[in-house]
Amino acid sequence: MGKKSKKFDPSKSLIVSSGFKLASVNQDAHPGFKGRKRQAEKLLAEQNEELSELQERLYASATGEATDAVLLVLQGMDTAGKGGIVRNVIGAVDPQGVKLAAFKKPTKEELAHDFLWRIEKQVPGAGQIGVFDRSHYEDVLIQRVRSFASAEEIERRYGAINDFEERLNAQGIRVLKVMLHISKGEQKARLLERLHRPDKYWKYNPGDVDERLLWDDYMDAYQIMLERTSTEENPWFVVPANGKDYARVAVQSLLLNTLRKINPEWPPASFDVDAEIRRLENS
Amino acid sequence: MGKKSKKFDPSKSLIVSSGFKLASVNQDAHPGFKGRKRQAEKLLAEQNEELSELQERLYASATGEATDAVLLVLQGMDTAGKGGIVRNVIGAVDPQGVKLAAFKKPTKEELAHDFLWRIEKQVPGAGQIGVFDRSHYEDVLIQRVRSFASAEEIERRYGAINDFEERLNAQGIRVLKVMLHISKGEQKARLLERLHRPDKYWKYNPGDVDERLLWDDYMDAYQIMLERTSTEENPWFVVPANGKDYARVAVQSLLLNTLRKINPEWPPASFDVDAEIRRLENS
Repeated sequence: MGKKSKKFDPSKSLIVSSGFKLASVNQDAHPGFKGRKRQAEKLLAEQNEELSELQERLYASATGEATDAVLLVLQGMDTAGKGGIVRNVIGAVDPQGVKLAAFKKPTKEELAHDFLWRIEKQVPGAGQIGVFDRSHYEDVLIQRVRSFASAEEIERRYGAINDFEERLNAQGIRVLKVMLHISKGEQKARLLERLHRPDKYWKYNPGDVDERLLWDDYMDAYQIMLERTSTEENPWFVVPANGKDYARVAVQSLLLNTLRKINPEWPPASFDVDAEIRRLENS
Repeated sequence: MGKKSKKFDPSKSLIVSSGFKLASVNQDAHPGFKGRKRQAEKLLAEQNEELSELQERLYASATGEATDAVLLVLQGMDTAGKGGIVRNVIGAVDPQGVKLAAFKKPTKEELAHDFLWRIEKQVPGAGQIGVFDRSHYEDVLIQRVRSFASAEEIERRYGAINDFEERLNAQGIRVLKVMLHISKGEQKARLLERLHRPDKYWKYNPGDVDERLLWDDYMDAYQIMLERTSTEENPWFVVPANGKDYARVAVQSLLLNTLRKINPEWPPASFDVDAEIRRLENS
């Protein structure tokens, strides 16, 4: 083992605050991180232990009185690396404490309800880390770009989303919203790789190119979404994601920060420890 | 990296076949495995890569025509190490392909239905690895020991379970049933550890000692369960589990075997690859 890497806190560099312009973000950059690919990989591995421990404490705390939970929302264009975050960042913690939900094209039953109906069912319980691979934000992204909902309805949704997330906060759920931001050129390269490798064909969907042709419309929809839903309580973080290693360690660090702020505690014994020791010794 | 460990296939040593006597199993043994703790840890790490690849192929195959899935059923007395298997064996694969279910004391709503009602809802879909931490077998274990159900009803359940699992097989689901078998002394040591470490209090439940006092009744119930439900299609494997490292690598190897038998294939492209490459190049 070499020497420990320095603490890396990307929250200030990546947070979306007033005046933010998505078009000004360089998708190749690695804000706040001094090292290169190899250092990012190293830090990712180093931070796993703390992440695992905080996750276990979060889970344990909910067996007591605590109601804390975390919801990581992942958004991004196709191939932006959402699945890689789940595999490489979330995959390092105990699966028993994780609640994953991938939101696809809504079913007929889902469409017959308010857009938050299917989302609500996947909200993490106390002690859990919930992860949304796509989310309620699709309802103001593809739905806006494709005009699947009226302009008034889209308008209504920004407010409904902010209210919904505040309600989650009131239940003890911290919402960590991450946009993985790749360039159009990087997307082309990643899609082409899928077409050149038979073991990747299954990840390719011709529909991805249809959405790609609307790239600029999507960027506009993301910009508006960020303006309308990056609030003080539940801000967005835009992570440059052309470099997968940077993106992973950045999301891991944001998640670590969220957990450190909760600082979950091992719950006290809800039984008489000495009496239990005696009872067990005699058994 | 040192040299690769030899293949380790514990299925023949651990399978429950006619004449099996649980009472004759030495919980400290490590059938089929020559090495010690350190070698078991090493092999566990080495086999992760193959496990991950097979899991990904299983998941991918289901995006095509394949309907294969795996259901790992974990049973054992409290502290037997079920959670450790989930964390250390299942935790190594992509969480997106895993469907975990932990079965606790049934709710009032669950009790108002047949015992398989809540189980059915957690059956893995095509391409998934399902993991049951406790299962429908609780309905012939604690329910038998505690007489929560009548003798006739318990009797009926063995047959219902066999039929249920055959139905899963018909859907393409391989059922891998594992009993983690610890000794009564080992359980005492593990429970005591929880009482001596404040960061483990949350894992301790005074009810565990109540069940412990019925140890022999549980062993009888397990013996009958194994006799009645270890079938040719869906056999049980009893894994000596006083040594956690052995138990983990044994379960990992059983799971690997199951996946190797399926031998899932990358699905062919469901689109015209060359046409898509051209379309993408022009986008």
